Amino acid sequence: MRYSRAFIPTTKESPKEATLASHIFLTRAGFISQVAAGIYNLLPLGKIVLEKISRIVREELDRVGCIEVQLGFVTPAQMWRDSQRYEKYGKELLRFNDRKEQEFVLGPTHEEMMVELVKNRVTSYKQLPLNLYQINLKFRDEARPRFGLMRGREFMMKDGYSFHADYEDMLREFHLMEATYRRIFERLGLKFKIVDADSGAIGGSGSKEFMVLAESGEDTIVLCSQCDYAANLEAAKRRKPERCDLLHTTGEIHTPGLTTIEELSKFLNRPKSDFIKAVAKRAIYDEGSEIVLFFISGSDELEETKAKNSVNANDLVDVSSDELSQMGLVPGFIGPIGLDWVRFVVDEELKGRFGMVGGANKVDYHLDGIAIEAAGDDIVFADLIAVQPGDACPCCGAPLEYSKGIEVGHIFQLGERYSAPLEAKFLDQHGKARPFVMGTYGIGVSRLMAAIIEQCHDERGCQWPLSVAPYHVAIIVSNIKDEAQQAYAADLYSALKESGIEVLWDDRDERFGVKMADFELIGIPYGIIVGKNLAEGSVELLRRSDLSKE
Amino acid sequence: MRYSRAFIPTTKESPKEATLASHIFLTRAGFISQVAAGIYNLLPLGKIVLEKISRIVREELDRVGCIEVQLGFVTPAQMWRDSQRYEKYGKELLRFNDRKEQEFVLGPTHEEMMVELVKNRVTSYKQLPLNLYQINLKFRDEARPRFGLMRGREFMMKDGYSFHADYEDMLREFHLMEATYRRIFERLGLKFKIVDADSGAIGGSGSKEFMVLAESGEDTIVLCSQCDYAANLEAAKRRKPERCDLLHTTGEIHTPGLTTIEELSKFLNRPKSDFIKAVAKRAIYDEGSEIVLFFISGSDELEETKAKNSVNANDLVDVSSDELSQMGLVPGFIGPIGLDWVRFVVDEELKGRFGMVGGANKVDYHLDGIAIEAAGDDIVFADLIAVQPGDACPCCGAPLEYSKGIEVGHIFQLGERYSAPLEAKFLDQHGKARPFVMGTYGIGVSRLMAAIIEQCHDERGCQWPLSVAPYHVAIIVSNIKDEAQQAYAADLYSALKESGIEVLWDDRDERFGVKMADFELIGIPYGIIVGKNLAEGSVELLRRSDLSKE
Repeated sequence: MRYSRAFIPTTKESPKEATLASHIFLTRAGFISQVAAGIYNLLPLGKIVLEKISRIVREELDRVGCIEVQLGFVTPAQMWRDSQRYEKYGKELLRFNDRKEQEFVLGPTHEEMMVELVKNRVTSYKQLPLNLYQINLKFRDEARPRFGLMRGREFMMKDGYSFHADYEDMLREFHLMEATYRRIFERLGLKFKIVDADSGAIGGSGSKEFMVLAESGEDTIVLCSQCDYAANLEAAKRRKPERCDLLHTTGEIHTPGLTTIEELSKFLNRPKSDFIKAVAKRAIYDEGSEIVLFFISGSDELEETKAKNSVNANDLVDVSSDELSQMGLVPGFIGPIGLDWVRFVVDEELKGRFGMVGGANKVDYHLDGIAIEAAGDDIVFADLIAVQPGDACPCCGAPLEYSKGIEVGHIFQLGERYSAPLEAKFLDQHGKARPFVMGTYGIGVSRLMAAIIEQCHDERGCQWPLSVAPYHVAIIVSNIKDEAQQAYAADLYSALKESGIEVLWDDRDERFGVKMADFELIGIPYGIIVGKNLAEGSVELLRRSDLSKE
Repeated sequence: MRYSRAFIPTTKESPKEATLASHIFLTRAGFISQVAAGIYNLLPLGKIVLEKISRIVREELDRVGCIEVQLGFVTPAQMWRDSQRYEKYGKELLRFNDRKEQEFVLGPTHEEMMVELVKNRVTSYKQLPLNLYQINLKFRDEARPRFGLMRGREFMMKDGYSFHADYEDMLREFHLMEATYRRIFERLGLKFKIVDADSGAIGGSGSKEFMVLAESGEDTIVLCSQCDYAANLEAAKRRKPERCDLLHTTGEIHTPGLTTIEELSKFLNRPKSDFIKAVAKRAIYDEGSEIVLFFISGSDELEETKAKNSVNANDLVDVSSDELSQMGLVPGFIGPIGLDWVRFVVDEELKGRFGMVGGANKVDYHLDGIAIEAAGDDIVFADLIAVQPGDACPCCGAPLEYSKGIEVGHIFQLGERYSAPLEAKFLDQHGKARPFVMGTYGIGVSRLMAAIIEQCHDERGCQWPLSVAPYHVAIIVSNIKDEAQQAYAADLYSALKESGIEVLWDDRDERFGVKMADFELIGIPYGIIVGKNLAEGSVELLRRSDLSKE
């Protein structure tokens, strides 16, 4: 492509409020332009990169027998009602009526539609397994769309859905997809981790995320310093810490005005882990909401996603002291004993402990000598805590560390989460109708474009890996008034193109400095500078990765 | 692809209410499945064909310097307000609010967004011309979505937009696009006509449509029996018929109860063309509506699109006699003389005629000896009539004929229709800011899939042209219990695949008749039947086009 015939509107201006390198450089280098919050145009360079990423995804999926389809984007609301997700998905599900007042949504994911497609069309175990995917538009009406392509509302996604006769075969496919995704992200030149993950609004029994490692990542991931253990903080486990509980006489302690673990720990001169901390939240459900208390060790922090899952809520929101008081609770002095009239969940690490201190549900008093089991007969225990750096790896016991990641892929063991409610069944070997056992597999295709730049950039601009670069080589003529340079560049351009190399020939009537700045901003892996040395029979080869010249 | 590993859910059931071959066969052969009215999933075979069509479109556009982008699908309503199309586009424009109550539409076409993209990014005549296109989703909330992919609501479209410094260069590109589209439709194996067209809601100064010739086409096209003249009925012209008007004394004629041209013509024994026919319509505008009368020759029919354009209305709807009476008009006896208090438009062929008969605006009376010019000083004339078969070609005078066509492409000379209101300007050679001169060019990519089948089918199913067929060859094993047949088929499958031929190997455990029926339904161009003759060293080559065997 000749630059003068292309549409590569580079600019020195960064988007307002842009903080991420990918947002800044993809905009400045003319890959994307914003339409509205979270909605972007892909300009010619952006479209080329998106297609290259898509092609790699497609090649690797097709290689292992996945089959491409293209599902409707505008989706009847009824499908979402039938799967019981219409309310649960919240405001991210954009709802509207058509001219005949029929209800629709913009598809944020397509489990429902894919199940409806396969239902009654695949009827026998002989037609299984089946793995169908698409690379298509999605819309999620995010509360805070930001960071350019990183958290958009309209975006390109690869979503795949597999159908199996039993769990064993679904697990086989799940592992195959893990290996396939690994190959895809390797071909994209990314440094990434595969981590245990929370299954969120998709549901199912187990899931893994593919995390591109980057400082700017929105997700916190927990990595073992020794073994391969890796998990999203939302799903991270730790080896249960050894606690040396001492017997304490049960009884009230006067703790005037002491409402924090910090203060109590000092006042009583006992470790924070001896205390039972109460965290109150309002849990939001499809219909209505309620206040729930979460009891964890005083040395721990509540992990909100775990807490949300423990009560199967759509969301958790903070509550004020006033709301608690109105309920008859005593903020600052809430404890588990005698609280059987409020819904509460207890962190499973508190199970079996004794001699602890908790609120007495009475102003200025705590209760010593507590075992959580004294709080009632049917206590709900769950993993509620946020693993901290330094905690012990659940696999090997070595210290865990935090890292930041960008989620670019997520694979789920769905099971019968959708096939059962939507009554999508097949006949097994014995002629019995059973719901499909399913898996689902996603890749954020347009987000990948941003994730690549988060890993591959310097202060001057993008540094595309060769596999997805918009062009392989740029030809930069130092002085376009010099006919020898121009003629050489023209020949070189033709020769490179003929050998299948993708070339951008910067033939613009611009200063050399302007062309070099654009080359660095756009991030084409190689540049060939046709300059003064041409008279001596040489040109310069420039590597964008380290700006080295040859 | 092995059939047993594919997802090709053929069925004997046709969709309810399906009348078109493409709708029936694409559904029955497992290319598409309906999600909701006018919304379809593309199944694996449908996706392959769509991609093959898209690739041909892309190759031909890229070859002539067009550049691909991908624009946002969800579009801020404000863009449509700025271009004054928000109201005008009517209910086909699907409108909704996001979670923050911002107004959006689902993009039915993207003139506004493309102009906003290029505005301020292309600033000088040196950067022109520029032709940007996308192949992307569109949504039009059609009142009556029907005929499968033929008139969908959600569909794939190629939409291109070119930017020029002057009309001359835009016309050059318009002709280049006409030639390029011609090549595209030729490569797709289609019989088509390029016709003069109405520019409709897109606007601009001239447009041409690409019509696939098919009995089932929704458009009526007018073709000359001798020369190359071709036009959509909405835009068709004819040579003005010779009329031999005779002078008649001006005066009232008593015509009791005679309200139709038919009756009057008999009663007065004069040709229908001697009468002035009044057609009343309610014209709908952005704000409000009004009754308009259209006066045409008694021998002609009103062409509604022409009529609508003549008063620049969004739509025309029928009016009842009561409505006319309430306005003080006399249904059945409406004529142009003395009607200066109602808006009316006169067909331009009535200009200069005399001795005609029209309504007297008085019950049971007509007026003889009329020249339309007597109706007032500022009469609005326009081309209002529907050309009839047998009318004279405007180019050569030979008789015109009707044919039916499916619109698959439409190219427009837009001019400054969008660049002017949206203030998208560039600096010309003299440093003067001027709005871009634009063209726009569309292809109905998913509709093409249906249009191809309308032309290429028989009573058994699809007959895909080789260029877009989902597979080139099918291998059909007559008896899969026969090991020699199976082994031969497996070798043949590998050999064909290695030579780059796309093969569907029907390895299913099904009766031969079932496999043959599916082969004919799906419409793969060639079949190789591995049967009994294999023992004698031969297999049969079957052509789907004529079912001939070799």
